Amino acid sequence: MSVPQNIGIKAIQVNIPRSYVTQDDLEETEISILGEESRTKIKGKFTKGLGQTALSFCTDHEDTASIAMSAVQKLMDTYGYKPTDFGRLEIGSETAIDRSKSIKSFVMQLFEENHSIMGVDNTNACYGGTAAFLNSLAWIESSQWDGRLALVVCADIAVYDDRAARPTGGCGAVAMVLGPDAPIVFEKGSLTNYFTHSFDFWKPNPANPHPKVDGPLSLTLYYECLENCYMQFRTRHPGTTLDKFDYVVFHTPFQNHIKKCTGRLNFLDQHQDNNDPEIIKTRSEHQTVSQQSHDAAQIFKDKVQPASLMSAMCGNGYTASLYMALSSLIFNRDLTGKRLMMFSYGSGAASSMYVLNVVGDIKFMKDALNLEERLANRVQRKVSDYDHDIKLADQLYRTAPYEPSCSLDLIESGAWYLEKIDDNWRRIYKRKE
Amino acid sequence: MSVPQNIGIKAIQVNIPRSYVTQDDLEETEISILGEESRTKIKGKFTKGLGQTALSFCTDHEDTASIAMSAVQKLMDTYGYKPTDFGRLEIGSETAIDRSKSIKSFVMQLFEENHSIMGVDNTNACYGGTAAFLNSLAWIESSQWDGRLALVVCADIAVYDDRAARPTGGCGAVAMVLGPDAPIVFEKGSLTNYFTHSFDFWKPNPANPHPKVDGPLSLTLYYECLENCYMQFRTRHPGTTLDKFDYVVFHTPFQNHIKKCTGRLNFLDQHQDNNDPEIIKTRSEHQTVSQQSHDAAQIFKDKVQPASLMSAMCGNGYTASLYMALSSLIFNRDLTGKRLMMFSYGSGAASSMYVLNVVGDIKFMKDALNLEERLANRVQRKVSDYDHDIKLADQLYRTAPYEPSCSLDLIESGAWYLEKIDDNWRRIYKRKE
Repeated sequence: MSVPQNIGIKAIQVNIPRSYVTQDDLEETEISILGEESRTKIKGKFTKGLGQTALSFCTDHEDTASIAMSAVQKLMDTYGYKPTDFGRLEIGSETAIDRSKSIKSFVMQLFEENHSIMGVDNTNACYGGTAAFLNSLAWIESSQWDGRLALVVCADIAVYDDRAARPTGGCGAVAMVLGPDAPIVFEKGSLTNYFTHSFDFWKPNPANPHPKVDGPLSLTLYYECLENCYMQFRTRHPGTTLDKFDYVVFHTPFQNHIKKCTGRLNFLDQHQDNNDPEIIKTRSEHQTVSQQSHDAAQIFKDKVQPASLMSAMCGNGYTASLYMALSSLIFNRDLTGKRLMMFSYGSGAASSMYVLNVVGDIKFMKDALNLEERLANRVQRKVSDYDHDIKLADQLYRTAPYEPSCSLDLIESGAWYLEKIDDNWRRIYKRKE
Repeated sequence: MSVPQNIGIKAIQVNIPRSYVTQDDLEETEISILGEESRTKIKGKFTKGLGQTALSFCTDHEDTASIAMSAVQKLMDTYGYKPTDFGRLEIGSETAIDRSKSIKSFVMQLFEENHSIMGVDNTNACYGGTAAFLNSLAWIESSQWDGRLALVVCADIAVYDDRAARPTGGCGAVAMVLGPDAPIVFEKGSLTNYFTHSFDFWKPNPANPHPKVDGPLSLTLYYECLENCYMQFRTRHPGTTLDKFDYVVFHTPFQNHIKKCTGRLNFLDQHQDNNDPEIIKTRSEHQTVSQQSHDAAQIFKDKVQPASLMSAMCGNGYTASLYMALSSLIFNRDLTGKRLMMFSYGSGAASSMYVLNVVGDIKFMKDALNLEERLANRVQRKVSDYDHDIKLADQLYRTAPYEPSCSLDLIESGAWYLEKIDDNWRRIYKRKE
């Protein structure tokens, strides 16, 4: 076996749930609850304030395993891969449906003719997908590699207790094929990491499927991780500024947060000394960060916003978010010859920065993704439907036996769905004709 | 940086909880509940039937994070490593204390001066530790490697609802240092894998910390995985029989199961055709498997039992089990020049087989492990204490705020323990003086 070269992404596909609500409708509902006098305060809060357009959600026929399987199925169907092409399948998720049995093992239902396929689930909030991605890349460079491809799947469903936080929810599942001779190549020597212990977002209460969130801490910690990864990167690659990258692709809780992140990186470009006390000092200064965001508006528009389609239209996909952004960029721009900075963040906290170089033609990925048409084919649903379905998801989390009651019309043809949970808590899946 | 050679295990350490009950006491308690007339049926059921001597358990000052941190601390202290020696720290566990925040992030409390330390939690029942182990080995061979060491930690607490299953519980945490120029070397080309989708052991009910178990399926599936890995191995390495290995180290739910596994491998040695229908046919024949186990008694005694100390004395450590067995073997035998077959199994199901070669002197590991003295220094507790403490563990799982009530005398000096869970569900840890 020859030494593998140009290791990276050979294919990428997303699952898009059929159901979505608009942020505009969420604002109107909020106003109807709080009273018309709240209109000036609420109107624009989610659309302009967060920078979001819509969010995806799941019916009770969908769970983390079904959206992961559907992403893999769609990838197989649109790119023409076979189950036997793969020697590794790894999952990133923080929406586990079992505390022992992996989502990977559920996805093995698509690989009945191939049992020699290593890899399990990676857990660390929104970062698990990047852990899976980096593990799989390393595998291809290692003596463990058997010449077959790796499949990385990121899948999460983001729902919050607090009505004020709900507009930052969403859903996403992305499947990627990694291997040698890829058109999107992981740049050797580009990886930097920053990990720490924090309680900014966690899911400690087994009785509650939803997270506890320390919002301000989580956003500041995101900056801390981002900046430390970037400072490590420029220490290793002197002369690094944002000019050296055609695009910057962020893990995206919501659009306006990554505007501020762009501002922070631009600010760092103007403060080349990693020990400059201004860096830590300004990180938690709300007004300063807003000004920095404003100063970097053109950079955001040129280098960041082209990756925003899926985030703006589907919301936060947690582990999938960064790779939904990459999918959006592939769909929106001709990336031939372009250099991408990628930044992955997961609360708790974990983060990595790395670089991708597009060395080949990837129009086939754009065609396979077909995002515009697929997003347009979704079903716009009412906020009351959203409220109803996420209540069912809570039941689904804690109940057996369980028979889903939502319409199968809300499941895409060819996708996998949860048929039922039996009386022994076994989740049974089917593929929609 | 030169190409790393002889990549493998450079150090290994275990955490041993102070509390244990004997299987003899568990049998007596069972008899006292069922009545003296049950004595002939029960006496010897756990000791002779399962082949177990005792099991470790945790007080409510111990959880998965604390035993993982304690294993790492003990490793640092006994081998003299510093936090800055490591570039990667990965966890295997199926006893998560949070559905988003990783155990890895809790262990980062020991690495406050080192934030560039990648890796997260790996989840797939008892297999997650091996996923972490293989990922970390691949990292060292990859271009992502930065020359520093990897730390792999396996940590689990095994408790069952069903009183009949309780004797197969236990607790374990193992920390291992991986790197180049190791005395215990991972044999290139030795890895085989077998993965499938099954419900043999799973934890689907969030209201219940304990697993659902289909015992017969789990044991048969273990054979299926073991045999398929072994058959792949001998296809790749023709002429393979158990003679080619000095020792065979198994993931060990309980001793008598791996006796049967030894019987199955010995049976396979006599049936070299992987398509021989006898292989699948006999797998679920209880009496045949028992006879095969009996036939392989000497092989078990020579090649398997020397790795049984920790399993027999502490019970099932889930992800830690295989590496507790390796620790036992290192402690019990001079392994210089020896070749070890390792087999890892996790329900759901995931499995890998690989080979380790001991190329250097590892007496320093035996000394650091010091198992006999440490096991002797434990506190033998009554079955009523066990019942009391595992009830508290259930409270700990579902309650905040929570103040542990067990005595700190049951925590080893130098170990980490859970001080409390605060009213916002944050787990706070301290190190015992």
